[in-house]
Amino acid sequence: MAHFEIDKKEFLKGLSLMQGIAGRKTTLPILSHIYMEWKKNSLFLTGTDLETGIQEELNATIKEEGKASISSKKLYEIIRELPEQTIQIQKKENHWIHLKCGKSIFNIAGLDPEEFPSLPAWQEKSFTPIPTRMIREMIEKTVFAASNEDSRYHLNGILLTQQKIEGKEFLRMVATDGHRLSLVDREGQMIKGVEKGLIIPKKGVLEIKKILGEKDGEGEMGVFVNNTHAFFKMGKSLMVIRLIEGEFPEYEQVIPKNNDKKLKVGKEILYGSLKRVSTMASERAEGVKLSLKKNVMELSSYHQDFGDAKEEVDLQYEGPSVDIGFNARYLIEAIQSFDTEEILLEFKDEGNPGMIRPQPSQPSSHQICIIMPMRI
Amino acid sequence: MAHFEIDKKEFLKGLSLMQGIAGRKTTLPILSHIYMEWKKNSLFLTGTDLETGIQEELNATIKEEGKASISSKKLYEIIRELPEQTIQIQKKENHWIHLKCGKSIFNIAGLDPEEFPSLPAWQEKSFTPIPTRMIREMIEKTVFAASNEDSRYHLNGILLTQQKIEGKEFLRMVATDGHRLSLVDREGQMIKGVEKGLIIPKKGVLEIKKILGEKDGEGEMGVFVNNTHAFFKMGKSLMVIRLIEGEFPEYEQVIPKNNDKKLKVGKEILYGSLKRVSTMASERAEGVKLSLKKNVMELSSYHQDFGDAKEEVDLQYEGPSVDIGFNARYLIEAIQSFDTEEILLEFKDEGNPGMIRPQPSQPSSHQICIIMPMRI
Repeated sequence: MAHFEIDKKEFLKGLSLMQGIAGRKTTLPILSHIYMEWKKNSLFLTGTDLETGIQEELNATIKEEGKASISSKKLYEIIRELPEQTIQIQKKENHWIHLKCGKSIFNIAGLDPEEFPSLPAWQEKSFTPIPTRMIREMIEKTVFAASNEDSRYHLNGILLTQQKIEGKEFLRMVATDGHRLSLVDREGQMIKGVEKGLIIPKKGVLEIKKILGEKDGEGEMGVFVNNTHAFFKMGKSLMVIRLIEGEFPEYEQVIPKNNDKKLKVGKEILYGSLKRVSTMASERAEGVKLSLKKNVMELSSYHQDFGDAKEEVDLQYEGPSVDIGFNARYLIEAIQSFDTEEILLEFKDEGNPGMIRPQPSQPSSHQICIIMPMRI
Repeated sequence: MAHFEIDKKEFLKGLSLMQGIAGRKTTLPILSHIYMEWKKNSLFLTGTDLETGIQEELNATIKEEGKASISSKKLYEIIRELPEQTIQIQKKENHWIHLKCGKSIFNIAGLDPEEFPSLPAWQEKSFTPIPTRMIREMIEKTVFAASNEDSRYHLNGILLTQQKIEGKEFLRMVATDGHRLSLVDREGQMIKGVEKGLIIPKKGVLEIKKILGEKDGEGEMGVFVNNTHAFFKMGKSLMVIRLIEGEFPEYEQVIPKNNDKKLKVGKEILYGSLKRVSTMASERAEGVKLSLKKNVMELSSYHQDFGDAKEEVDLQYEGPSVDIGFNARYLIEAIQSFDTEEILLEFKDEGNPGMIRPQPSQPSSHQICIIMPMRI
């Protein structure tokens, strides 16, 4: 008799969502495993690398309740190849499981499920509902600016906080790697406990984005935070992320106040020009020069071995001529994060950071990208 | 004045076909370049790694004839990003070129085009026309069995030869890595000079396959061979491949003559079973056991850490029981190379190679795959 039965597609869907987390760290053998617990009408899968944990609830027919711990990668490989039929799974002695599907029979080695580290505790009723689309957009508009350098651990994440602006409450996300900064505010959403500011690691944020990408994108998700962890409930997926301890930089003083040279430009036009001109930027510094002149901005680059490139973008500009160098990739990534057809570039001079905003801006939604200049 | 003008799409198509060859070896700087010569109504692009050379003829409007040598990778990066417009190119002093497209202007460094190694000579009238589809199919049915090990240089290619069978002439391709062998014959096509047998390196063969994949696949291509090179003309692409010197193994004595255990099986059924059972094969040996019993073949595998798998495939078999081990990947790759819905497995015993043939077989087309057994 099978201890539980599950549809192949349902099982595969759950396992595929865990592959980014379970088995990522191989220091402890059990962390390369998935913890399976079948009870009532569900199979619960849990995977964790101790920083990020994920739990999936899947529809299953339970004949007898049980638990197992099985290699995440091997189980995924097997389930992927099975025919689109019902899978029967039975617990055996010594933590093995017996799996049957169509004409295939597998005996799969496991570890003691009691040794699997449990996820931090949460309570269903503690979650604040937040529109899924809003969280996904806020992540997309900030995460690219977070640092990838292990040595700057407190910059390897996104600051989640709240901000009162002109009497209204905004949820805020900020990311910076010291060379650029992205900030986005959305009005009217409050999450208990984020007032003091939390740093959510980039890896966990990208896993949330991955799961949200698989959901239909509408509807709501639940968010709950405590002193050490943030919990995200998305449909039948739950993600638990250990917060980064440390101080997020004083980002507000970085935001330029006196960038008086403002240029409105089509997002796609500037994106295309930057992609072209950046092919001649050096691999290391990736620098392009923006030269403001009367009603035109010239983009140019120079590569020691390969040559040079330049291109003009027409726009309205009446101010003084000024040349400013920027990392081309930082500009491109920032531009891609905007949803509006036009964007506003705000500069001061070659020694001060540039800022980009959406155009027109919405009072209920703020977004800025700041990029440090470079000598070129 | 532009020296020549070319459509962006046309230029990009030609450059993309060269990316696998030009710049693959970086010992000589000029080999990372593309040689460009514009004359009459064409731009000719040439790339080579000295083993494999490729020449593309592209439609262009020539104002003044000329030559240049430009970094393959950098030129491709630039052209890819240009708008879908006409590109104007002009030769400058010191081997540079000046490129203009829309609002973009590039100055690109080059080398002296006279230093670019010329391809071996060929004559247009020497090419034998051969159906493109036939060459592509013959490559697909053999190339996977060629060796990737640098130490077995004479096995790193496909033998191209001719064979007289029952009074009829066949073109033959054979590849082997010492553990398996694939052979395909097609009737009625003769190529002058292949009677003695040529070994065409796998890398060159894969480049031919890539180009054929971009063409529409019908029609004819031209083939010409001399003592040192094989030439393939495909539309406006010409590929020159230096032949491998050395003796191809005496493959005919490897072909089993007395494999008396014959099993007809559906290709997709066996493929699916092998994919499933091979998930429990060890990573190193990749072994699966085929156990022949009355009217059934059982596939099974065992992994020291993860467990075991088995599956039965129904078929007609009345002979004695026998167990034979094979590398699962070799079986899977061989099966994938057949076009028929059913295939015929022919075995002798656990110490002798297995053979696979299409079912039914065509008198004008022979195909066999041979796989050495393994202890399991």
